[in-house]
Amino acid sequence: MINRLATSDADFRQRLEVLLAFEAALDAGVQQAVSDIISDVRARGDAAVLDLTKRFDRLDVGSIAELEVPRAEMQRALDGLPAEQRKALEVACERVRSYHTHQLQQDWEISEADGTRLGQRVTPLDRVGIYVPGGKASYPSSVLMNAMPAKVAGVAEIIMVAPTPGGERNQLVLAAAALAGVDRVFTIGGAQAVAALAYGTESIPAVDKIVGPGNAYVAEAKRRVFGRVGIDMVAGPSEVLVISDASGDPDWVAMDLFAQAEHDERAQSILLCPDAAYLARVEESIARLLPTMPRAEIIAVSLRERGALIQVRDLDEACEIANYIAAEHLELSVEDPEALLPKIRHAGAIFIGHWSVEALGDYCAGPNHVLPTGRSARFSSPLGVYDFQKRSSLIRISQAGAAALAPVAATLAYGEGLQAHARSAEYRSGK
Amino acid sequence: MINRLATSDADFRQRLEVLLAFEAALDAGVQQAVSDIISDVRARGDAAVLDLTKRFDRLDVGSIAELEVPRAEMQRALDGLPAEQRKALEVACERVRSYHTHQLQQDWEISEADGTRLGQRVTPLDRVGIYVPGGKASYPSSVLMNAMPAKVAGVAEIIMVAPTPGGERNQLVLAAAALAGVDRVFTIGGAQAVAALAYGTESIPAVDKIVGPGNAYVAEAKRRVFGRVGIDMVAGPSEVLVISDASGDPDWVAMDLFAQAEHDERAQSILLCPDAAYLARVEESIARLLPTMPRAEIIAVSLRERGALIQVRDLDEACEIANYIAAEHLELSVEDPEALLPKIRHAGAIFIGHWSVEALGDYCAGPNHVLPTGRSARFSSPLGVYDFQKRSSLIRISQAGAAALAPVAATLAYGEGLQAHARSAEYRSGK
Repeated sequence: MINRLATSDADFRQRLEVLLAFEAALDAGVQQAVSDIISDVRARGDAAVLDLTKRFDRLDVGSIAELEVPRAEMQRALDGLPAEQRKALEVACERVRSYHTHQLQQDWEISEADGTRLGQRVTPLDRVGIYVPGGKASYPSSVLMNAMPAKVAGVAEIIMVAPTPGGERNQLVLAAAALAGVDRVFTIGGAQAVAALAYGTESIPAVDKIVGPGNAYVAEAKRRVFGRVGIDMVAGPSEVLVISDASGDPDWVAMDLFAQAEHDERAQSILLCPDAAYLARVEESIARLLPTMPRAEIIAVSLRERGALIQVRDLDEACEIANYIAAEHLELSVEDPEALLPKIRHAGAIFIGHWSVEALGDYCAGPNHVLPTGRSARFSSPLGVYDFQKRSSLIRISQAGAAALAPVAATLAYGEGLQAHARSAEYRSGK
Repeated sequence: MINRLATSDADFRQRLEVLLAFEAALDAGVQQAVSDIISDVRARGDAAVLDLTKRFDRLDVGSIAELEVPRAEMQRALDGLPAEQRKALEVACERVRSYHTHQLQQDWEISEADGTRLGQRVTPLDRVGIYVPGGKASYPSSVLMNAMPAKVAGVAEIIMVAPTPGGERNQLVLAAAALAGVDRVFTIGGAQAVAALAYGTESIPAVDKIVGPGNAYVAEAKRRVFGRVGIDMVAGPSEVLVISDASGDPDWVAMDLFAQAEHDERAQSILLCPDAAYLARVEESIARLLPTMPRAEIIAVSLRERGALIQVRDLDEACEIANYIAAEHLELSVEDPEALLPKIRHAGAIFIGHWSVEALGDYCAGPNHVLPTGRSARFSSPLGVYDFQKRSSLIRISQAGAAALAPVAATLAYGEGLQAHARSAEYRSGK
């Protein structure tokens, strides 16, 4: 039902590697298809987007205008929500907004005795694109999580794209877009939507950065346009790692593992605990609760293929493994989580203590739910306001400063064989 | 000798586009070669690196140990520098270090009335790799600019790779590595060095992020391993944009354009000025000074192919064009630069006033010289300490907080059809 491992097993490291292994295959067919689509959109603009949308989304319209969702329709979707749902969306939106304001970065400047002033200025991106997948991975919460950091950063224009196969528009997604203040929505998707956002067409404006998850074609297209525009991390399957000291309710832990596993069959749920008896109790909870889950089949595949209950020697070893895995979501489901926290170096989001469950973070605690997956928390961060701001170095050198620095620069420039650099510096020192 | 444009030309926008156009061709041969090299290094580790180094760098050794530069040799390189050069390198290193300390990001936390605490923790990467090109683009200043932000961030281990075709080691580069506190240096390069750093071999440790410029093979390899490790921006040719109000010495401006152009034939130097007579004077300075330059041939090609003197209507129009170009280096070579500064939204580094010349920034002013190229300053930032730190969300929800948030999360989770999420939240509210 779920893999059982112990760090004392002779083959533990190998088995862990196999469990963690997930590399989006670089499918040559996908690469060629994406390359062709991008070329087509660059060459033919709107006409290519219309043709590709007809082919892939069975949506046959005569102009891009018909693929744009009017503001009024977005507002109607919001107004049409049941009161409880609208209230929940508003609470979530406001908490996410409020949390993210603390990520705003500030200009800074330092002055030197000779009048030289150095610093950095922080400015928002002009225009960004948000990709929202169609079908079952089309989540209103993700619209908020992608759009709100951009809004807080001060991005002037947010363009959302979301494929609507057969023309069916997801009202919850449109409502979330209206609430988050998305400026324009186009019902296009796939590599053609990424290409249109990166290069612009007659009717679709080019953006400066594209964020949001998508299928293999979308991921490959983002990788291809990287450099022309900014992109966020290419997302892998979602993961949770729970560290338990056996102090929590096994049903809670089982349900937390389910919440990850229900996303899709490739999602990963792992529990680390030093207590074998407790692991057995969690396994019993899994067996008892699984049949009550509407998504039991997806959960079962995910737990069988990629899930694990791992018996560790002690909590220190659990932290070591957690740092190796660098999980997207880490739950410290222990009596004294503050004692473990300093030992954790790598994780996207850390849920501290029994009440801090991932599901609250996914929707409304405030922090972003777009997080680094596949061990990338070793080097990257949750999506944030900082992804929608960029910095410029500001360099104000005084005449006295130039006189002092020019000989240093010239010495190094001559050492590198760059005489124009040296002369350019020396001019400023009156040489 | 250099292109002359005016914004009043009917075909100005087209000509500007042609000048700016630079897209590293996605060469199918390079892609295949890089793919093969990465597979080989992953499969055979050290043995593959040794074979490839023999093939590409004509360096035939029996073990990776022979390709590692001992600490003592790095220190000898530093001790062997002429006094003036050593002093210049030390001044530059200390100024770069000092400037970058201001980029350190801090943890933050907010507390709510019900005891819930939310925040972010900032931690350094464990281990990073710095790629230093061989041959004529092997600059000691770049070693400092890549290594110092990582040191300031608190990265525990910095691994440098630098190819040494034929076995010749660049003493200035080794001296800079010693001064910057690089931990280990391997004399390997190309896609095989990137693959070894990304995946690790028996003798070369896997890193968490790879930074630094390289040729087409290195760039493609970085693009391929992106996700497995972090990478910095894929760098294009270097550029300078000068905005002049005709108040500066034309020789200074000409030399600043040369300093960019001497890097390589594809480097780009553009001057914007409303005064046609001044543009003519700069052209005259170019003609007069060019023959005095040791790198005159490279400069001539760069100015002819990619350089331009552009007459603008006024300084406002110059700022508009500057925002479109989003230059790596922007010099405000004007009487009142502070009046222009608020109008500039996009640039990697802004050099403010006549004394603030790029050549000082390249070596020793303090800000980083690794900057976004090819219009990417629209969405990205100078290399900085923030590239070597990452954030984890910290989520501490109190019992009362969980009771308040669980219904919100559950409502949204049921709306998305994710029942395990809903139940996992509801457990925490006693439901």
